[in-house]
Amino acid sequence: MTEPAPHMTPEQFRQHGHEVVDWIADYWSRIESFPVRSQVSPGEVRAALPPAAPERGEPVSAILADLDRVVLPGLTHWQHPGFFGYFPANTSGPSVLGDLVSAGLGVQGMSWVTSPAATELEQHVMDWFADLLGLPAAFRSTGAGGGVIQDSSSGANLVALLAALHRASRGGTVRHGVEPDRATVYVSAETHSSMEKAVRIAGLGSDAVRIVEVDENLAMRPEALAARLERDVARGYTPVLVCATVGTTSTTAVDPLAQLGPICQRYGVWLHVDAAYAGVSAVVPELRPLQDGVEWADSYTTDAHKWLLTGFDATLFWVADRAALTGALGILPEYLRNAVTDAGTVVDYRDWQIELGRRFRALKLWFVVRWYGAEGLRAHIRGHVALAQELAAWAEADERFDVVMPHPLSLVCLRPRWADGVDADVATMTLLERLDDGGQVFLTHTTVNGSAVLRVAIGSPATTRAHVERLWALLRENHDWLATDFAAAAAEREAARAAAAAVLQGPAPS
Amino acid sequence: MTEPAPHMTPEQFRQHGHEVVDWIADYWSRIESFPVRSQVSPGEVRAALPPAAPERGEPVSAILADLDRVVLPGLTHWQHPGFFGYFPANTSGPSVLGDLVSAGLGVQGMSWVTSPAATELEQHVMDWFADLLGLPAAFRSTGAGGGVIQDSSSGANLVALLAALHRASRGGTVRHGVEPDRATVYVSAETHSSMEKAVRIAGLGSDAVRIVEVDENLAMRPEALAARLERDVARGYTPVLVCATVGTTSTTAVDPLAQLGPICQRYGVWLHVDAAYAGVSAVVPELRPLQDGVEWADSYTTDAHKWLLTGFDATLFWVADRAALTGALGILPEYLRNAVTDAGTVVDYRDWQIELGRRFRALKLWFVVRWYGAEGLRAHIRGHVALAQELAAWAEADERFDVVMPHPLSLVCLRPRWADGVDADVATMTLLERLDDGGQVFLTHTTVNGSAVLRVAIGSPATTRAHVERLWALLRENHDWLATDFAAAAAEREAARAAAAAVLQGPAPS
Repeated sequence: MTEPAPHMTPEQFRQHGHEVVDWIADYWSRIESFPVRSQVSPGEVRAALPPAAPERGEPVSAILADLDRVVLPGLTHWQHPGFFGYFPANTSGPSVLGDLVSAGLGVQGMSWVTSPAATELEQHVMDWFADLLGLPAAFRSTGAGGGVIQDSSSGANLVALLAALHRASRGGTVRHGVEPDRATVYVSAETHSSMEKAVRIAGLGSDAVRIVEVDENLAMRPEALAARLERDVARGYTPVLVCATVGTTSTTAVDPLAQLGPICQRYGVWLHVDAAYAGVSAVVPELRPLQDGVEWADSYTTDAHKWLLTGFDATLFWVADRAALTGALGILPEYLRNAVTDAGTVVDYRDWQIELGRRFRALKLWFVVRWYGAEGLRAHIRGHVALAQELAAWAEADERFDVVMPHPLSLVCLRPRWADGVDADVATMTLLERLDDGGQVFLTHTTVNGSAVLRVAIGSPATTRAHVERLWALLRENHDWLATDFAAAAAEREAARAAAAAVLQGPAPS
Repeated sequence: MTEPAPHMTPEQFRQHGHEVVDWIADYWSRIESFPVRSQVSPGEVRAALPPAAPERGEPVSAILADLDRVVLPGLTHWQHPGFFGYFPANTSGPSVLGDLVSAGLGVQGMSWVTSPAATELEQHVMDWFADLLGLPAAFRSTGAGGGVIQDSSSGANLVALLAALHRASRGGTVRHGVEPDRATVYVSAETHSSMEKAVRIAGLGSDAVRIVEVDENLAMRPEALAARLERDVARGYTPVLVCATVGTTSTTAVDPLAQLGPICQRYGVWLHVDAAYAGVSAVVPELRPLQDGVEWADSYTTDAHKWLLTGFDATLFWVADRAALTGALGILPEYLRNAVTDAGTVVDYRDWQIELGRRFRALKLWFVVRWYGAEGLRAHIRGHVALAQELAAWAEADERFDVVMPHPLSLVCLRPRWADGVDADVATMTLLERLDDGGQVFLTHTTVNGSAVLRVAIGSPATTRAHVERLWALLRENHDWLATDFAAAAAEREAARAAAAAVLQGPAPS
């Protein structure tokens, strides 16, 4: 007879659970003692781990010790108040607690019957958020549409495309597949790369992507979209989906939904709105005009796990006609059949997503919205937007930086100014590396109209005005240091060039 | 000026975290006091929730009270020792702790640089598991392949198909999309439905699916596969992928990898092995012969979140040639560029999956394997297999039940015997409903050779021999009760039929 497995008893879990909670509380308390960006080199973390799994079990204390020894140095600290990179992936105490309950319950919400509360709390919370964000009535579960939590906006963009393909083919894709030579999908050069990835995953290939021109603010030009649609239809293509973005990844540009919507309707094209980062800002009424025209959307995605205090993954996705989604994704093998599903009286969320299995993700959203309340969520968003506007004002008033592109939310794009003759992109990227190497802050970059700019995304709940002031001081200090250096190098190059020119202008070689 | 958001402080988190840990420990301690299957009706959970999100924040105590009041009655308790439905989705204390750490850190592992430890610990743990499961050297990160955590085997089946399409088209799918009229995918009628769903998502349409015949044990017949491939190639089709299953969902049938592998190689078809449930059993050396021939696999998936004590989602996916996967899924926008990615010295897992964002899921696997050790994992699997074999032996020896199909692992399929004249499927499904309504146990069903059978999947860590004995007693008791009832009804029907026949055989109507 073999020894029974050494399961952790509830009482052991109670003890170790308290230890891990304390470890996290301590981590949050001391997070500013870490460099924001990890300073390890490739392979360093693995080199600190044993080559094989342990044969015998180890105590929790040993694992926690290795968290400190091996894992923490290998982290880029996304919850650090000096984290200004990418978009935030902010979380919060209530989110962690909700997720902990979900892990502890360990239920699987693939079908209504496999845990009714998992499905119904999700429907309910999604309706709450549709209200909180001022989204159209068509997205409520009470009508033909509904909301569902997806793993990411990448996943949401994919399922939106699959639903659009299903509708455009009147269901033909289910049996016959797609028509890569005919189907077309419309984005701008600023659309998130996940939309092109979705087009590839769905079997269309990237040649199906039409890149619609943008205006001076990097927003999709409605007349350009209309012209492309007109031309493609005339040539026999089948336009399937237009992806409009509210808050692009590069600069938070906003495509004009109110003008794009009627065009999509005219051509019978599915309008998908990717508001991954910016959508949650609509909890604040004064920011809702950014997405005027959202009522034209066939589907809409925004990430509570970016800027709404909920840990990854918690994408809020709505569709106006859920039948297109479940038509594309529904499948019912015998072992999942049950009375309420057969009767059609319930929603089975497995048919709304790529995967079959589902965690109880609504819990963390529920914890967040209840702990903060609507007013707490608004205060959170308003606080970051205010900080971003302050930073932009400081930069506008400073001759060392240009603020490029509108900054209606909490992302500010800065283009450092450099002396004539300096390779601006090299200098800007050098400035970025110096800041990130310093460990107090972490920024990332993008390109705008072909030149490198620094992105400052304010989004950590721990970020205060003092942290933004510190960032601003570091930006100026490091710019001063580098500007002198780069200008001197440029002047040297210019002098050398002039000297070489003088030689060339001298007596011709014999 | 607006009020600052009421963020939960680290000290508040410490306090409430302890409360939630205690709540979970208490839940685990009292889990047997709940009916396994939720007894709520559709809409009941939502009716207990307020129609709108709260305007003002609420204390954690209020949320925990609603967990008890609203959520718990709406759960089907997957961790209950009487849960024998579907496949298990077992979790464990160490898994919950690892996931809690992940939630508390709140890092995003889309690229190596965004948290090196998230990528490297995952690579490392996946190599550990390749060792623990005796998987081929080709799957190790040290060669051309590698492992990655996927959200589910549904997702794994999809990315395997995308990689296979990429290889079969020599990369052509990236730009030109798929060829739904030519590409073919091979499954058996027992293959999980997610493979057909993947075929639809990938744009091929379900007509591309070829259903290969199975033998009397519901295993794919190699000669039938060879014949179908031969015929399809002759007709100009392009066979892309064969999905072989180790442990089908219905009955844990095992497709013969050692014979399928050479056939796939001969036709240049990608061999994907879906071992979602059964794969983890290979931690036990004596169970490895089930997947003899796994070295032929181009890709392989098994779910640590089913039967290996790790909470959903934790699918272990390996590929022998990672270039096919990243070729299909890689995309690099400017804002994700960085020095180590450009240098090609690191793995960026975002290019191994559908989504861009990633949680630090390796932590929970790391906690599990360290707490249990390899020997603890083996004991866990061996314990369940032993219980299943005991149950099967009891049923074999009992005239009320037939054990259908081989049961090498922890699933036993039982076909209740009923008297002549009884509609066996109706009686079996009635027995199932009675058991599930009783609340002490939860089973699900499938069909084998067209008739309904009960599936008993032993997989909860809390399940002991006493729970299986109780299930067996309930099966017999309820069978006895129903058998009498159904036999009486059948006899009545037969008597009525005989009486009607007698009338009909009387004088002809005038």
